Amino acid sequence: MMKSYRELSPSPRTIMTPGPVEVDPRVLRALSYPILGQFDPEFTALMNDTMEMLRSLFQTDNRWAYPIDGTSRSGIEAVLNSLIEPGDKVLVPIYGRFGNLLYEIAERCGAEVVALDKEWGEVFEPDEVIAAIGQEHPALVLMVHGETSTGRMQPLEAIGKACREQGILFVVDAVATIGGVPVETDAWCIDAVIGGTQKCLSVPSGMAPITYNDRAERKIAARKKVERGLLVPGDAVSGNRRPAIQSNYLDLSQLQDYWGPARLNHHTEMTSMLYGLREGLRILLVEGLEERFARHRRHEAALMAGLEAMGLTLYGNPACKLPVVTCVTIPEGVDGEAVRSMLLSSFGIEIASSFGVLKGKIWRIGTMGYSCSQKNVLHVLGALEAVLIRHGAALPAGEGLQAALAVYDA
Amino acid sequence: MMKSYRELSPSPRTIMTPGPVEVDPRVLRALSYPILGQFDPEFTALMNDTMEMLRSLFQTDNRWAYPIDGTSRSGIEAVLNSLIEPGDKVLVPIYGRFGNLLYEIAERCGAEVVALDKEWGEVFEPDEVIAAIGQEHPALVLMVHGETSTGRMQPLEAIGKACREQGILFVVDAVATIGGVPVETDAWCIDAVIGGTQKCLSVPSGMAPITYNDRAERKIAARKKVERGLLVPGDAVSGNRRPAIQSNYLDLSQLQDYWGPARLNHHTEMTSMLYGLREGLRILLVEGLEERFARHRRHEAALMAGLEAMGLTLYGNPACKLPVVTCVTIPEGVDGEAVRSMLLSSFGIEIASSFGVLKGKIWRIGTMGYSCSQKNVLHVLGALEAVLIRHGAALPAGEGLQAALAVYDA
Repeated sequence: MMKSYRELSPSPRTIMTPGPVEVDPRVLRALSYPILGQFDPEFTALMNDTMEMLRSLFQTDNRWAYPIDGTSRSGIEAVLNSLIEPGDKVLVPIYGRFGNLLYEIAERCGAEVVALDKEWGEVFEPDEVIAAIGQEHPALVLMVHGETSTGRMQPLEAIGKACREQGILFVVDAVATIGGVPVETDAWCIDAVIGGTQKCLSVPSGMAPITYNDRAERKIAARKKVERGLLVPGDAVSGNRRPAIQSNYLDLSQLQDYWGPARLNHHTEMTSMLYGLREGLRILLVEGLEERFARHRRHEAALMAGLEAMGLTLYGNPACKLPVVTCVTIPEGVDGEAVRSMLLSSFGIEIASSFGVLKGKIWRIGTMGYSCSQKNVLHVLGALEAVLIRHGAALPAGEGLQAALAVYDA
Repeated sequence: MMKSYRELSPSPRTIMTPGPVEVDPRVLRALSYPILGQFDPEFTALMNDTMEMLRSLFQTDNRWAYPIDGTSRSGIEAVLNSLIEPGDKVLVPIYGRFGNLLYEIAERCGAEVVALDKEWGEVFEPDEVIAAIGQEHPALVLMVHGETSTGRMQPLEAIGKACREQGILFVVDAVATIGGVPVETDAWCIDAVIGGTQKCLSVPSGMAPITYNDRAERKIAARKKVERGLLVPGDAVSGNRRPAIQSNYLDLSQLQDYWGPARLNHHTEMTSMLYGLREGLRILLVEGLEERFARHRRHEAALMAGLEAMGLTLYGNPACKLPVVTCVTIPEGVDGEAVRSMLLSSFGIEIASSFGVLKGKIWRIGTMGYSCSQKNVLHVLGALEAVLIRHGAALPAGEGLQAALAVYDA
């Protein structure tokens, strides 16, 4: 007798983590539309729309802006795999967990990786990075824009300009910031950027939008290798001058031939996810980038005011706070995981813990995309107060919500 | 003034390609449900359901059966990256385009790859492969089960048993066959299998279900490397004995720690795609594997009878025909692409062309998953007849549908 599985029926959640966050219902609807074949002209038109909208999102004139078919991490790996040749010297200034991930992936690409470490809760002074560049003469510099593990944001413009002057490729992980905070690819001289869908874009995890300029493309083109299965008798196997890209799935030289007019077969495009991404981008552009950034700032201010009025301490240097993630020090004597668990089970609210040295020390509350709303901010403040009181914390009851409401009234 | 983008409104299609095919409406509905956080206990329960259902699908008792977050190609690369160490000798018997892809990916993993080539339209006698194994003594043998480029299916059991006796890892690409044709992982002694979602499972492209046994796991475990960002002060960096897996995103040693009880953070699971995959698997198990395989055989028979009654010639050796793909020789003097184009524009039907040496020579018609239905088979036969007549082909009008209906009546 076959085991029968329960009907899918997910409980409604208020998701206030640094991602994944709640998905806009219009995006959920887009996911449910019947699919088109990947080479159907109607579908390739949707792919082209998506590229165009991504250029607006990334604030770039780059030719190449398209999603990698995988989670954000796949986008990072696609860019690093394609841009790092074995033996390349790579500088990675690290100020949190996701800087470590850049280091880790660069190492697996065969790079000679130099880490520059910064105490968690801070970011780098641009001059510190520029000095290290002068010492190390790397071929690439890799940095995280918004570090969700610590809730910090790194200023990039001065570093980008220094890299450009010295002919160094500057690669930025903007997974957490894209769509919530300005990411000015061209103005900041970034050669390749990786974004995420499941955070400020409020599209489910599953694609990683990237963009890269012609400086990056030249390095990729020199490593191009025609796939064995696509050679036609008479074709010469391409004699690539530089070491081939080690991944096939994440090979940008092949992917751009698929996203470009050649439409060379590679993977089977994720049709439903593409519907969702296109819809998420359309919604974002209808709202407007500036309006969207201002919305993220407004709800961040209300959340911070509420948390501080409750007597909680925010973690990290406020001068470099990431606007879309607020980190809260877990009060002495309170079991952080018990609080998270009760928030979820009693209030249907999810907030996040953190990683490594911050595990058990802070909570992380996201205000990203569709989750970044007055309703959600007020809901989390009220619930957190109740749960903390339930866990024996002494709080000025009622103050958190009043402080947040005052911000909204201002 | 911002450019405005058209509302998403895909035209209804009858998709009779070898994938992607039409998605079951229940799966589309599942995609549209609000998401859960990736570590929400409700969500991890859905992940566990999915693993259990995948074991039934793969007909295996393997502990590890879970999806890779990417298209089918990412599943292939994850398995090959994790199982092939640089310098490993790998035998790839090739009888179509997707065998070439296995070769290509194995080469990028640093393998010493030996190809065994077979004329397209045929498959290997198991003894040919076993003899090559005896000569080459590879560490791994990689084969495609169902080759959609030529519409052929390779018998695997004897090859699997020979590999097992000689301690060789046997890896099978069952992307095209899983859920439409029996794939008996354990009985056929396959060490690792990669399936596809967008074909006989009728879930959109975006995940690649895989399974592997403890023989494969031992090789993966020996290459395990703890990610830099997950080390806690005091942890020793793991001294892996064997060369580390070159991909981080597609590293099965990390992925199994995420899918297993440790739930170690890796990527952000594709929540909506997981809903879809779980629903697709649930539907498949409710239908029953045997019933589903029989359904695929029934509609294949009707389609073949209809095509032959129209006077068309089927391509390839019938003894090794892949039941879920029927290849048709494009009649002399007919422009294959003009026919495909009219089928799409006038009838909303998509059928496929082929690759490499078969480009312009054959059409490929899929009968997979939700697309594999009497309604669709009859629709494609009627439409193809009309379009061929419109293109000047001399056909016995009306015969195709009558022959197919006769099969359904039998």
